[in-house]
Amino acid sequence: MEPLDYLAEERSKASFDVEEMKIVWAGSRQAYELSDRISRLVASDPVFRKDNRTMLSRKELFKDTLRKTAHAVKRTVELNLSEEESSTLWNYVDQPAYANLHWGMFIPAIEGQGTEEQKQKWLPMAYKMQIIGCYAQTELGHGSNVQGLETTATFDPQTDEFVIHSPTLTSSKWWPGGLGKVSTHAVVYARLITNGQDYGVQGFIVQLRSLDDHSPLPGITVGDIGMKFGSGAYNSMDNGVLRFDHVRIPRDQMLMRVSQVTREGKYVRSDFPRQLLYGTMVSVRQIIVSESSIALSRAVCIATRYSAVRRQFGSQNGGPETQVINYKTQQSRLFPLLASAYAFRFAGEWLQWLYTDVTKRLQANDFSTLPEVHACTAGLKSITTSATADAIEECRKLCGGHGYLSCSGLPELFAVYIPNCTYEGDNTVMLLQVARILMKTVSQLVSGKKPGGTTTYLGRVEHLMQCHCEVQRAEDWLKPSVILEAFEARAARMSVTCAKTLSGFSNLEEGFAEISSDLVEAAVAHCQLIIVSKFIEKLQQEIPGKGVKTQLENLCNVYALSLLHKHLGDFVSTGCITPEQSALANEQLRLLYSQVRPNAVALVDAFNHTDHYLGSVLGRYDGNVYQKLYEEAWKSPLNDTDVPDGYHEYIRPFLKQHFRTARL
Amino acid sequence: MEPLDYLAEERSKASFDVEEMKIVWAGSRQAYELSDRISRLVASDPVFRKDNRTMLSRKELFKDTLRKTAHAVKRTVELNLSEEESSTLWNYVDQPAYANLHWGMFIPAIEGQGTEEQKQKWLPMAYKMQIIGCYAQTELGHGSNVQGLETTATFDPQTDEFVIHSPTLTSSKWWPGGLGKVSTHAVVYARLITNGQDYGVQGFIVQLRSLDDHSPLPGITVGDIGMKFGSGAYNSMDNGVLRFDHVRIPRDQMLMRVSQVTREGKYVRSDFPRQLLYGTMVSVRQIIVSESSIALSRAVCIATRYSAVRRQFGSQNGGPETQVINYKTQQSRLFPLLASAYAFRFAGEWLQWLYTDVTKRLQANDFSTLPEVHACTAGLKSITTSATADAIEECRKLCGGHGYLSCSGLPELFAVYIPNCTYEGDNTVMLLQVARILMKTVSQLVSGKKPGGTTTYLGRVEHLMQCHCEVQRAEDWLKPSVILEAFEARAARMSVTCAKTLSGFSNLEEGFAEISSDLVEAAVAHCQLIIVSKFIEKLQQEIPGKGVKTQLENLCNVYALSLLHKHLGDFVSTGCITPEQSALANEQLRLLYSQVRPNAVALVDAFNHTDHYLGSVLGRYDGNVYQKLYEEAWKSPLNDTDVPDGYHEYIRPFLKQHFRTARL
Ligand SMILES: Cc1cc2nc3c(=O)[nH]c(=O)nc-3n(C[C@H](O)[C@H](O)[C@H](O)COP(=O)(O)OP(=O)(O)OC[C@H]3O[C@@H](n4cnc5c(N)ncnc54)[C@H](O)[C@@H]3O)c2cc1C
Ligand SMILES: Cc1cc2nc3c(=O)[nH]c(=O)nc-3n(C[C@H](O)[C@H](O)[C@H](O)COP(=O)(O)OP(=O)(O)OC[C@H]3O[C@@H](n4cnc5c(N)ncnc54)[C@H](O)[C@@H]3O)c2cc1C
Repeated sequence: MEPLDYLAEERSKASFDVEEMKIVWAGSRQAYELSDRISRLVASDPVFRKDNRTMLSRKELFKDTLRKTAHAVKRTVELNLSEEESSTLWNYVDQPAYANLHWGMFIPAIEGQGTEEQKQKWLPMAYKMQIIGCYAQTELGHGSNVQGLETTATFDPQTDEFVIHSPTLTSSKWWPGGLGKVSTHAVVYARLITNGQDYGVQGFIVQLRSLDDHSPLPGITVGDIGMKFGSGAYNSMDNGVLRFDHVRIPRDQMLMRVSQVTREGKYVRSDFPRQLLYGTMVSVRQIIVSESSIALSRAVCIATRYSAVRRQFGSQNGGPETQVINYKTQQSRLFPLLASAYAFRFAGEWLQWLYTDVTKRLQANDFSTLPEVHACTAGLKSITTSATADAIEECRKLCGGHGYLSCSGLPELFAVYIPNCTYEGDNTVMLLQVARILMKTVSQLVSGKKPGGTTTYLGRVEHLMQCHCEVQRAEDWLKPSVILEAFEARAARMSVTCAKTLSGFSNLEEGFAEISSDLVEAAVAHCQLIIVSKFIEKLQQEIPGKGVKTQLENLCNVYALSLLHKHLGDFVSTGCITPEQSALANEQLRLLYSQVRPNAVALVDAFNHTDHYLGSVLGRYDGNVYQKLYEEAWKSPLNDTDVPDGYHEYIRPFLKQHFRTARL
Repeated sequence: MEPLDYLAEERSKASFDVEEMKIVWAGSRQAYELSDRISRLVASDPVFRKDNRTMLSRKELFKDTLRKTAHAVKRTVELNLSEEESSTLWNYVDQPAYANLHWGMFIPAIEGQGTEEQKQKWLPMAYKMQIIGCYAQTELGHGSNVQGLETTATFDPQTDEFVIHSPTLTSSKWWPGGLGKVSTHAVVYARLITNGQDYGVQGFIVQLRSLDDHSPLPGITVGDIGMKFGSGAYNSMDNGVLRFDHVRIPRDQMLMRVSQVTREGKYVRSDFPRQLLYGTMVSVRQIIVSESSIALSRAVCIATRYSAVRRQFGSQNGGPETQVINYKTQQSRLFPLLASAYAFRFAGEWLQWLYTDVTKRLQANDFSTLPEVHACTAGLKSITTSATADAIEECRKLCGGHGYLSCSGLPELFAVYIPNCTYEGDNTVMLLQVARILMKTVSQLVSGKKPGGTTTYLGRVEHLMQCHCEVQRAEDWLKPSVILEAFEARAARMSVTCAKTLSGFSNLEEGFAEISSDLVEAAVAHCQLIIVSKFIEKLQQEIPGKGVKTQLENLCNVYALSLLHKHLGDFVSTGCITPEQSALANEQLRLLYSQVRPNAVALVDAFNHTDHYLGSVLGRYDGNVYQKLYEEAWKSPLNDTDVPDGYHEYIRPFLKQHFRTARL
């Protein structure tokens, strides 16, 4: 028997080689094969089942998470998986857990900030998970402003120890993942105080729980901070609260790569360049950008498949109704998101390269590109995560009523994704940092300093301030050079306008504060330019496979022209394009939508998501939506009995008029 | 002892009379006093406690909802509350339940579509809740397209009965609130078939469950459809699935006000004007608009208070850090939402008047204003709910990490609010209907037909197509006439452009489909104009109270100018304003933010929300955020024990190396 495929006709319409596109999406054939293999492995393992996740109570969910984590490690060992394979497996398990923080933050913090001795002492235990750690930076009162943390680590020369203490309520550690119930250890960030002087925030390795019975050590108050957004979602994580009551740790548990405290309590800075620490931040944010494309691709895949299955209105002579994906309104909401998924994917790929490049330079003591790389990752982190968060919710709305059901997968995807806009740098704070670097770059132009990297275009600022877009017909908008120049001109003009306004202030900081929301917009324009230009660069490479490049060109144009439409005010009010040219861009965009339409389902198939990973009845590969929705309903715990608990106390008395009633 | 108030200083800064503003917000002194009294009543009643709601399992939550509903009815009777008081009480209970559908849809459907006889038979039982009903329209396969419903009601002249049947999987009723576990009856929409002919969709009263033991009647399959977005939130409702297997009901259970089926099976249409049925739709959508302002006001209240409490960065010489509400980026994200809350409030007030007006006209057989009123409510429903949904999530982000905690109240508010964008008319579908009426209005201009109501401005289309905005200095943007003309010109030009493009198509429907996303944008422009103009009209009335009018003027200007900034592309590309004028608008907006800033906390106090209703640790009236966050954490079920369930199986073996481990 042929397997059921309600989307077969859609698939047959595609005018490109989906298998080749899968490889482009994955980055390489090897990466594709690896993720394909591992995703199937996870999907077929009953322990990793997640379809009932939103129905579990918090305790059940948490236990389920512990179980999955242990099982993931077990499978990794049994199958002798490589590091890449096992992290891929863990991604496909798709359930936030303490392991993310242990491997992703605790260990890297020691690797990055520990001395050789410290690494030799702690890392082997951590690698074997004989200790489990988390990253305890944020406090109740301080998140974004790390320098404002209040926890203290006071050196006691008498005992050669640090005394870790929470002097105020707001100094309570708050948020660290894995802290609440699992971690035995933490890297705790605290103000180093020695000889009565405050040397600012440093990292310390602190044991929190007994390795025998897991109970909190004396002086330690630790617990979970409670429910977070949504059901399922990030509630699998034990984000924690932690207070110290004069907890003593040996001096050598301060992470001492960058600065030390001597036996006598003297504070000494090593010659290790502080900038190297930024490498980790760049690395984490680069991963967040890559992951944004994955989260977005899941949402878009669900909405696209369902939009091809869903029919509403437009039946002619009793024939089938119109697939909602054929409505231009649906297309103009959905296809820019599809294009964004690809755009963010390539931006992420490029950032990964950038990270490798800057790491090499740092190792060679070349710090020259660091500020720009820093701005670039902070900015891309901000705009890709904001766009992805909005896009997931838009995809949900595109699914009409059924998108509101947990089994559509979209509510949980949204709930688990959105903290990306806040952690690892609040998105607004990030954009303000980008704006600072842009303003600095612009102000240095007069002195003849040539900007590099992604700010290179600012070196052509004179041209960009007065160039005119040459578009005369709709198809002129398909030229990459035209698009690029429009985006460069917009970004340059917005930055220069801000810089001019700033120069009118006697106090630069005041000026910066006053026009900060214009600065944020300039930063957004700059970051969007980066994404557009990296997409265009990608298309200058050779890309094999029938029709693959054409599809990507269409998507690149959809991405750029839909952004142009969305931010039309920027482009027109700075004179980068005329109203007539904007109308032509819109006309071209409509034509592009028609070209994307027959390929839409194949373009989301190219993400190669398993049904398990998607976790969505609406996004099923076979499009068998209604049957499965119907079956899913009966799993509701309320359907355990015909007559609900509470009927006798609270409903029957109405019906039998044992309650007196009144209109509510 | 003085009660604690961390926001006292903020409150002392306000330059207007908050008590008077409360009355403006509530609509009248009487309305204010009523809602103040009832909200305190609910807040002080332990049964209505909701702070633990997101931690309940689905079954517990559902039972809690039944309990609260019964208790609300009981209190209503005991206190002998008026209809207005009891519906206010129910609003403050703030937990979606079957009662909403019983009173809000089931009863009105019978009142509106039943004959006098039917009303006499059914309504007394329904009013007393001897029967409980729901509104069963949507099916798995059809929501927006009601005419496509598949459930059949076939007349059997032999027995004088209708046979209600679900012929396909997709004909299963799906979504009706209160259907899953509670309703004994439903108004079921089904295709009327008699004498082999299909007369389209009609309403039927169908009993679903035994009034003795609540078990589903023979031929009825009914249940809950499962988890929906979020925890707590709309999961208190038993949205249901329902299938009929040839269920027989007497002929007189078809709602026969508009059309009848005779004993012989003849279909007869009464002379009752069908248009009257639209009245209900207008009424429901008008309520949704009013409720949007309430939901928005809650989110804005939380974000504003917390932004005044939260301090981050900017400490000088060890002094306190900057309140985040002082950052211009925070203001430019938050204050437009604060202004929108007031704008939507007044739009809702006006819609309520419009509804009364159209009801009077309908009763006098004057249907002339109906299409316009219909467009207007559909459009405002769409733009206020979309804006509110986005705004709630923006408010959550404005609270940084802590906004992600359930106890911030924002996750649940978002989850429970968003279906407003979908039910009672999908927002995109609504805007397309508005666009249709706009296009009709424009096309009739040539024939000299004078448009009325909210489309009156289109009668001045010639002027609006070529007028120039006269703004020369930033403060010129404060003139209501200037703002109004800019919004009118923008809306008119967008509509006319669409109409011109349409006239280029030989097939109008094809044209409409092709440019539908431009049409949606024109509809948005039209609806935003309505809101701006109703706000301005409100300010032409006398408004007592020191400084109250000045504050509202500021908010009106913030609303209009922030919209102008957001949709700058529309205004500039249609030549309604110049880039220079847009820069002046921005300058003025910044000045306005400075004027709103000292009044912000008082402006949200004016909503008069109790802490119970807000349900937010971050939004507490007294600003005692950190203490309460800390206390809240310990209520997490994971904190019941120090060592979590699952430790022995899944964590300890790592620590003791009974598991072999590997990097994830
Ligand atoms: C799910 C989740 C997991 C987390 N995991 C960890 C973890 O494992 N370890 C850990 O240490 N922490 C963790 N955190 C904490 C996280 O890093 C912080 O929440 C984040 O840094 C944001 O800081 P904040 O909460 O202080 O936001 P705030 O800075 O208080 O933000 C509030 C508002 O103020 C604005 N704002 C702040 N400063 C400025 C400024 N200078 N200019 C303009 N606007 C400003 C922001 O834009 C925002 O709108 C986690 C948080 C979450 C939500
Ligand atoms: C919480 C909740 C409670 C509900 N309660 C009830 C209830 O009590 N009783 C009841 O009967 N129903 C109820 N409903 C159902 C609700 O009325 C429908 O979900 C709603 O009408 C939307 O219809 P749909 O789901 O078919 O969306 P669809 O129409 O399938 O929408 C899917 C997508 O198609 C697009 N689309 C559809 N038609 C067009 C078109 N012509 N042109 C362009 N785009 C189009 C939409 O914009 C959307 O993006 C409820 C739903 C929810 C979520």
